Amino acid sequence: MNRAALVNQIRKKKSFLCVGLDTDPNRIPKHLLEREDPVFEFNKAIIDATKEFAVAFKINIAFYEAMGPLGWISLEKTLNSIPENVFTIADAKRGDIGNTADQYAKTFFQTYPFDAVTVAPYMGRDSVQPFLDYLDKWTIVLGLTSNKGSADFQMNDLKNGRKTYEQVIYTTAEWGSADNLMYVVGATKAESLKTIRAELPNHFFLIPGVGAQGGSLEEVVENGKNEEIGLLINSSRGIIYASNGQDFAEAAHAAAKSLQSQMASYVG
Amino acid sequence: MNRAALVNQIRKKKSFLCVGLDTDPNRIPKHLLEREDPVFEFNKAIIDATKEFAVAFKINIAFYEAMGPLGWISLEKTLNSIPENVFTIADAKRGDIGNTADQYAKTFFQTYPFDAVTVAPYMGRDSVQPFLDYLDKWTIVLGLTSNKGSADFQMNDLKNGRKTYEQVIYTTAEWGSADNLMYVVGATKAESLKTIRAELPNHFFLIPGVGAQGGSLEEVVENGKNEEIGLLINSSRGIIYASNGQDFAEAAHAAAKSLQSQMASYVG
Repeated sequence: MNRAALVNQIRKKKSFLCVGLDTDPNRIPKHLLEREDPVFEFNKAIIDATKEFAVAFKINIAFYEAMGPLGWISLEKTLNSIPENVFTIADAKRGDIGNTADQYAKTFFQTYPFDAVTVAPYMGRDSVQPFLDYLDKWTIVLGLTSNKGSADFQMNDLKNGRKTYEQVIYTTAEWGSADNLMYVVGATKAESLKTIRAELPNHFFLIPGVGAQGGSLEEVVENGKNEEIGLLINSSRGIIYASNGQDFAEAAHAAAKSLQSQMASYVG
Repeated sequence: MNRAALVNQIRKKKSFLCVGLDTDPNRIPKHLLEREDPVFEFNKAIIDATKEFAVAFKINIAFYEAMGPLGWISLEKTLNSIPENVFTIADAKRGDIGNTADQYAKTFFQTYPFDAVTVAPYMGRDSVQPFLDYLDKWTIVLGLTSNKGSADFQMNDLKNGRKTYEQVIYTTAEWGSADNLMYVVGATKAESLKTIRAELPNHFFLIPGVGAQGGSLEEVVENGKNEEIGLLINSSRGIIYASNGQDFAEAAHAAAKSLQSQMASYVG
């Protein structure tokens, strides 16, 4: 899905909500466990219940990988059940030397045809370029993450006056464009978000950390919005685990609807 | 496998060779392609041909992941065919927030019971800790990598006088010990290796980049060796693709033997 189509979906749904499918087999409702593929059944119900409010779904690869080969089968069925007009993100945070990054890009753009994949920047340009080489896909680089540990290295002060995360964002921005590069910027970092937006007026930011991690939607929009919105705000646990009973899909529907209705006022 | 057992294997085999199983289905000998699981058959033959010279095998996860669920089945069979007394490394370079890092640690320490996993440090302590929480396992943190892109961020100068990779290595060293933490240090960075060894006399370093990437064994040993050797030197393509004919296993045997015989002189 290209930029124009994504912006169009945001306007149409009056939403910039991304629903995160961090599906833990230990947390899904008990009545689903008798099914042949409980993880897929859970995801399918969540997707159907929230797709009218979500412009993107983000699949957190770790949860599927931990289940072995069956997890990847659940993942593939999940990806196939997401409607064409919803943006899909593999949250994989991969990063390795060129010939290995080629394989990771193949995994998430060909074997599993996602629109976008999250990429870790530590190993530099040749670890990011193989993802950018897919011209109709998106690379989402970790900039400033929402977790406590982001202070350990991302916030380090460089001699040139920048923080490490700024160096990462502004350097990688030269490797692609606002049409194929996005950044992860945590919702818990409102001040930094404002600065990054000033430097990169056109890029989309994928924002985790609203809800369970404590970030505020209003602050994020105030500091991060651009003319096309330019934000995908992710909520995982707050939506998919809104209830763990028979009514989990209805509860997810209500939680997604509530976020979308807050977002609607910001979409012109 | 704990530190004493690993050191014991190094002394016994007079080798600190790690064979990297970066197995690309497009590069394995044609006569294997008729088999039910060509990737596993290839790996099994390589393992059998090189295990007398190798103290470790490193499986590069990207190559298996790109194949979908069948790749993970090949991976599991490969891991099971590595003898008990050989150290096993999942080269996965994972890194994410706590609840997701838990899942990655589960993948590579439980679902697939490797001895060690490579971890990307960008997201800080809570992304590394879940791996360290497995007391009988090893976490191998990316320090200074062997690729060209390592210059982009790892070599950045910090205000405190350190480079970013030094900050990563010396900070993470406080989170674990020489009994559960190793570092990736590229063979192409001999000078830096010397400095890191001076600061961390006891840790093992996993060294990629000898061979295909241009690093010299002699230089690495000179700059990186400690009293217990303290090095695992990886070779992937130079061994596993030494021949792509019927004689691929014999050629791998010869290539591993040649490296081991060079290493033997350094093991007291």
